[in-house]
Amino acid sequence: MTAENRVYKPKAISGFPEWLPEYRVVELAWLDRIRRVFESYGFCNIETPAVEEVDALLAAKGGDTQNEIYVLERLYADPVDEGKEARLALHFDLTVPMARYVAQNFNALVFPFKRYQLQKSYRGERPQKGRYREFYQCDIDIVNVDALPLQCDADLAAALLSAYKALDIPPVVMQLNNRKIVTGFLKGLGIEDATLATRTLDKLDKIGAKGVTDILSAAGIASDKITACLGLAAIRAHDSAFVVQVRALGVSHPELDEGLDELAFVIDQLAPQFGTQVLVNLGIIRGLDYYTGTVMEVRFADTKTFADLSIGGGGRYENLASAFINQKLPGVGASLGLTRLFGLLLDKNMITPGRKCPTDILVVLPEEARRTEAAATANTLRARGFNVELYHRDAKIKNQLAYAEKKNIPFVWFPPFKDDQPHEVKDLTSGQQSPADPATWERNS
Amino acid sequence: MTAENRVYKPKAISGFPEWLPEYRVVELAWLDRIRRVFESYGFCNIETPAVEEVDALLAAKGGDTQNEIYVLERLYADPVDEGKEARLALHFDLTVPMARYVAQNFNALVFPFKRYQLQKSYRGERPQKGRYREFYQCDIDIVNVDALPLQCDADLAAALLSAYKALDIPPVVMQLNNRKIVTGFLKGLGIEDATLATRTLDKLDKIGAKGVTDILSAAGIASDKITACLGLAAIRAHDSAFVVQVRALGVSHPELDEGLDELAFVIDQLAPQFGTQVLVNLGIIRGLDYYTGTVMEVRFADTKTFADLSIGGGGRYENLASAFINQKLPGVGASLGLTRLFGLLLDKNMITPGRKCPTDILVVLPEEARRTEAAATANTLRARGFNVELYHRDAKIKNQLAYAEKKNIPFVWFPPFKDDQPHEVKDLTSGQQSPADPATWERNS
Repeated sequence: MTAENRVYKPKAISGFPEWLPEYRVVELAWLDRIRRVFESYGFCNIETPAVEEVDALLAAKGGDTQNEIYVLERLYADPVDEGKEARLALHFDLTVPMARYVAQNFNALVFPFKRYQLQKSYRGERPQKGRYREFYQCDIDIVNVDALPLQCDADLAAALLSAYKALDIPPVVMQLNNRKIVTGFLKGLGIEDATLATRTLDKLDKIGAKGVTDILSAAGIASDKITACLGLAAIRAHDSAFVVQVRALGVSHPELDEGLDELAFVIDQLAPQFGTQVLVNLGIIRGLDYYTGTVMEVRFADTKTFADLSIGGGGRYENLASAFINQKLPGVGASLGLTRLFGLLLDKNMITPGRKCPTDILVVLPEEARRTEAAATANTLRARGFNVELYHRDAKIKNQLAYAEKKNIPFVWFPPFKDDQPHEVKDLTSGQQSPADPATWERNS
Repeated sequence: MTAENRVYKPKAISGFPEWLPEYRVVELAWLDRIRRVFESYGFCNIETPAVEEVDALLAAKGGDTQNEIYVLERLYADPVDEGKEARLALHFDLTVPMARYVAQNFNALVFPFKRYQLQKSYRGERPQKGRYREFYQCDIDIVNVDALPLQCDADLAAALLSAYKALDIPPVVMQLNNRKIVTGFLKGLGIEDATLATRTLDKLDKIGAKGVTDILSAAGIASDKITACLGLAAIRAHDSAFVVQVRALGVSHPELDEGLDELAFVIDQLAPQFGTQVLVNLGIIRGLDYYTGTVMEVRFADTKTFADLSIGGGGRYENLASAFINQKLPGVGASLGLTRLFGLLLDKNMITPGRKCPTDILVVLPEEARRTEAAATANTLRARGFNVELYHRDAKIKNQLAYAEKKNIPFVWFPPFKDDQPHEVKDLTSGQQSPADPATWERNS
């Protein structure tokens, strides 16, 4: 190496993860399984561009996205072109693009529209360990015109929970609530600033009962009302038994009744299928103000290791695409934050890497003179559905075997080295080698 | 709708295509098949971020990318942060990210490293009909340290051609050449400005023999030499018979000999498997200067409809990652331009749309009182591997059937409407309805 060989030494870019092949294959398998589950519930796939018009993003988001949006500029922008086109930015989630897509294609879609979307989103965050600036989201939503049946909430929750169950991850529990229970309860108590109270209760996990009490007391809320709120937030049940517990708190309001009915319906739909993997937790709020009914949050069952960490969730919103279309489009949606989940388990060494390549069988090249037969053997096996490599050059058999071992290829195939020899196959796991016919061999034979 | 309901009316963004669900399902099926083929040849998948450091892109590309790169800026950039971090830009292809990845992970990879990558690339082009600014590329490359066996060229070409053959598209032909034949031939003729001659021959399809002659004559090249060049470019063969045709032109040079040997080896590997779907075409150049040996280009066989349009291709390069690492890394790679291909066939109405949703079976909800049984039926069928929706509300059966028809759902399942009734299933294609058991029913029964 001489001084002339100046290279631009590449390094990882903070917040933009990428994996080695043996981990990527796991991520890819997870994406496949999530897709399979979402399709099993009838969700169709769509893919929207990575970008939206900046004005569309701001219209939907209300402009409060300080520092979060990555805007595109051309490296060598032509001053003549400047301002002629709408500014573009990378989407920061998949909900706004989906709302825009539904509005734009309103007449071409069949409602209720059930779609899933497995794509990366982008946030222009400052670099910080564990914070992703590019990350996979696996979103499902059901959107309908004017009104959306409550069964959709249950179906969506079932699809989401089933997706987690399809992954090689520790057991999870889906926690469910209904925002009408919270807001109806606060109204029933006569608490005027429902937003403050809701937001404060949302922090219960972080600041504890004392923290909540301090804030609500300071806001002038009487201590018996605060006690009632904390009582509500403490209610847990695996079935509709939670209704009796809420009633016992002695608060009543029509919105509370509605919320209790809705949540009872949803848990009654889910409990037969999922048992204790679904849990009514009336302390679940999920910050986003636009949720208006069902809210769901997925957590690991093992709270010792993972605490109350949310690994996904969603809820119901009254009007999805009001920024884009004069149609009432209620929806229920949820997101499985794949990159965050994968990165978290990777950090804890809880991801078992896969193979370094998909090859099932390495066909040995005995010598250059036998290339035609070896290539034909590889083609025969490939046509039968196996993933096959023919070793790439005439080399010592030892080297060919070493390549298979380094790449975690499970079988090595030996075509005849002489005309009267049979084919043989070696199972590198067991070390066994035996005669085999490329036209009929099976993995378990 | 009142004046208050101001909405941001969304419209398509030029160059950023997206499809309706019934077309996206076709694109997704194509991506699956391409992946399947690439894996059957032992290529592993990687995915790199959508962005690279601007300096990395420029280091690899040599800085001649006027107007092509989309740079990211934060919408509300904080002046304090400015300049602290490297500037980021969207990748314009998958070759530079792969080279960067290989350099960065050099010690963790097993060589020859065979990877495929199915991702979108981005080009900051001016808006223009038919020009994509975001597009899928399906790339395969084989990279080795120091030297790369020629068999890799044949393997890569086989994998690429097999990928096209796995799609529902008109028949294609892979055209093959070797750059050493062209450059060796020019050297043998004593033509000094090989670059001009090569670039001019590359335009033969567009400007014709007369155009090529005019340019080369103006550059002072004698007419017999131009005739020889045009003779070379006109050679076609489905096997190594092309060698005799080249020899007949009476030019000799060691580099020409090398190129002929290499191309003969490659076509000899491919012809037994692909027959007339592979074609030696000594007029194929493929503009990019970095190709140094094998070049391949895929075209439709039906040149009446599609002319000589290239729908993908690639070739061999001597040193892939010299911008990033002081290691000689020769490679051979190719790209299937999926979005361009898909968009082209869509424009010609040659894509048959798929179903609007993946649902196999719509389970009818007979009435609210029978919800539990209907939901259990849906779960039973789903657990057996079918994609199933339970109709989302208690509605007239006519409406439930209409939903299935609008969504192209092939089967409608009727759970018992009364306790003593059997389940029935209706095939919407044939109109036949018959009793069935959710635990055992099969599509063909």
